[in-house]
Amino acid sequence: MSIITLTTDFGLKDGFVGTMKGVILGICPDTRLVDLTHTVRPQNILEGAIALWRAYAFFPPGTVHLAVVDPGVGTDRIPMAARIGDHFFVGPDNGIFTHIYEDAERLGGRMELVRLENRQYWLAQVSRTFHGRDIFAPVAAHLAAGTRLADLGPALQDPVRIQPLRPEKTSSGWRAHVTVVDVFGNCTTDLPASAIIHQQEAKFLVCGRTIHGLVESYGEKGTGELVALVDSEQFIEIAIVNGNAAQELGLQVGDIIQVQISHPTSQS
Amino acid sequence: MSIITLTTDFGLKDGFVGTMKGVILGICPDTRLVDLTHTVRPQNILEGAIALWRAYAFFPPGTVHLAVVDPGVGTDRIPMAARIGDHFFVGPDNGIFTHIYEDAERLGGRMELVRLENRQYWLAQVSRTFHGRDIFAPVAAHLAAGTRLADLGPALQDPVRIQPLRPEKTSSGWRAHVTVVDVFGNCTTDLPASAIIHQQEAKFLVCGRTIHGLVESYGEKGTGELVALVDSEQFIEIAIVNGNAAQELGLQVGDIIQVQISHPTSQS
Amino acid sequence: MSIITLTTDFGLKDGFVGTMKGVILGICPDTRLVDLTHTVRPQNILEGAIALWRAYAFFPPGTVHLAVVDPGVGTDRIPMAARIGDHFFVGPDNGIFTHIYEDAERLGGRMELVRLENRQYWLAQVSRTFHGRDIFAPVAAHLAAGTRLADLGPALQDPVRIQPLRPEKTSSGWRAHVTVVDVFGNCTTDLPASAIIHQQEAKFLVCGRTIHGLVESYGEKGTGELVALVDSEQFIEIAIVNGNAAQELGLQVGDIIQVQISHPTSQS
Repeated sequence: MSIITLTTDFGLKDGFVGTMKGVILGICPDTRLVDLTHTVRPQNILEGAIALWRAYAFFPPGTVHLAVVDPGVGTDRIPMAARIGDHFFVGPDNGIFTHIYEDAERLGGRMELVRLENRQYWLAQVSRTFHGRDIFAPVAAHLAAGTRLADLGPALQDPVRIQPLRPEKTSSGWRAHVTVVDVFGNCTTDLPASAIIHQQEAKFLVCGRTIHGLVESYGEKGTGELVALVDSEQFIEIAIVNGNAAQELGLQVGDIIQVQISHPTSQS
Repeated sequence: MSIITLTTDFGLKDGFVGTMKGVILGICPDTRLVDLTHTVRPQNILEGAIALWRAYAFFPPGTVHLAVVDPGVGTDRIPMAARIGDHFFVGPDNGIFTHIYEDAERLGGRMELVRLENRQYWLAQVSRTFHGRDIFAPVAAHLAAGTRLADLGPALQDPVRIQPLRPEKTSSGWRAHVTVVDVFGNCTTDLPASAIIHQQEAKFLVCGRTIHGLVESYGEKGTGELVALVDSEQFIEIAIVNGNAAQELGLQVGDIIQVQISHPTSQS
Repeated sequence: MSIITLTTDFGLKDGFVGTMKGVILGICPDTRLVDLTHTVRPQNILEGAIALWRAYAFFPPGTVHLAVVDPGVGTDRIPMAARIGDHFFVGPDNGIFTHIYEDAERLGGRMELVRLENRQYWLAQVSRTFHGRDIFAPVAAHLAAGTRLADLGPALQDPVRIQPLRPEKTSSGWRAHVTVVDVFGNCTTDLPASAIIHQQEAKFLVCGRTIHGLVESYGEKGTGELVALVDSEQFIEIAIVNGNAAQELGLQVGDIIQVQISHPTSQS
């Protein structure tokens, strides 16, 4: 039994995702289908990349991750598939797998990438506007059914990468960026918690307000208090206890959080 | 292993769809459940009909399609099931399967329709407001488990049909209608691409703007450009490249697109 | 084959639910996953409790119901699991299972509750902000895979309960409350239909308007008419035929519906 996850900007109202699942189940009837998200903002490759990256490692080895945020559909952008570590990936070569490549490079995982050229693994009719249905879904299903990656097409060199947000070192600490605003309005940043552990005193300057130090959980402070804490992927997150930090502060993805770190020896 | 698709206007917040799935899995534990859409606008039968029709043919033979947009629940509207071609359908007899009937009539597929009258295939308690749970879900599950259509009730003659949108021929071309506004704001019409191929010069008059000819993919033009192209079901679609045509032009389902066709011999 | 249902306030956009499913499928690959709702309003335990309660009994015996609306995540609130009647439940001990306890007490079903303390059934790394992924999902998967409840931890006494809405008896009838506003704007109340059957004449005072008696189905009256009827769980519901009662009347969860009952012997 194999698993295919789906990450798209197709929304839930139009039946696009269901149609892809119909194609998949026609090819690989016993695969398990898991939606990651289908409400990536239209054509926002970075948002899709982050959503997939935060989730994929929690799936079992052998899972096929299908990701279709594809503003270039029908142009000469390359359809691709990959084996990265123990996971498979299928989608357009437009940077949506950038964070996965970086994980593999950091952790030493193996990476095999191919261009999808072998049309026997596609639907017979291929439209110019819905490669999710006509190319990516059937290829994912064939991978889930045991087709070898190399059978799908020739090796892909130098895949497209997007520029992930990264924190910048400053004289007093870090300039971090909001990377995700979640459904609760919690604002995750690109600053790994490892940058400010060891009992250093950290201050977070957010929209003219200052947060002193980290809390360990939301419930450690009272309702309505602005806090910083370590999120579930070990990055620094800004939140309002039982509130919506993004709405109350007007925070959006890409916004700057200034982090000042006072080392124990230099405390005033 | 059988598949049941679900198309409703029940939304995702209230647990109605999950409840139907509980009923189905209690009857046919190994069926595969695929959501097509649950955000059909409340009681909009035409919208549900189009969503189902665009997706169903991509599912394997034997799939059971459960469609519940049911403003007449609890009245004397007839609950029905059908075998049309290789697919099964379950829902109210209110026109939601109109496009499927037309496909079968055009393609010569066989159609068997029954009235759901045999209560042994329903839940023991039947409410007056939730036949999706009490009648349609259990019937779909029994069909998926192998119950014969004829066992569900007597033949249904002359099912209800709704009036699908259709393009009208004009002296200079076609009056087409917007049939679907998708999550990207792309506006599909009722005009089949076959009406304007053969290198004819076509002009599309949309909200006071004119589009000259078709592009082959969104990416063929620059961001923000208004284009016409062939959609993934071979109908003419109006779109703005990397934009939202419906929002920017104020287009809605039912709006008119004038199409002027200049035949090669009459080009000025 | 086992079933796990999921009820959360995690929304659909962030991939949190998909991540939990990845964890579950890694532990119990052949479990069936059914979403009840993920759009409970953030941290609204009562809303999650009602959504779960309305759906759970329609699932087969042995189903595991995973419910994570968890404002106290990371604090000393207790993670719990339970067997109540023929169903299993996993989530925080914050009252989200209150209505299930009451069902069991009313119907005489057995209840076994445990504190989740045995970390061998959790993920190896446990964050302070996402116990849905790190504790509750793996525990649900182990239960679905056959782990005994008692293996998860010691007995839990006196679980937390929330105060469900309940109708109040008045001299002339009942003060009922809106408990759910569904996707159609229909407003279910806490007044069981059994309180006003037997052909008594009932009047419903709603936002300054009066409804005389019950209808049997929405379609019994014309579009736009305000009606009261028995909902699919046998409670009194206020609706507008083919309209949205909540929007048109401004009704919200918790609002009062006055119900006046004229007994046959006292009719004026």
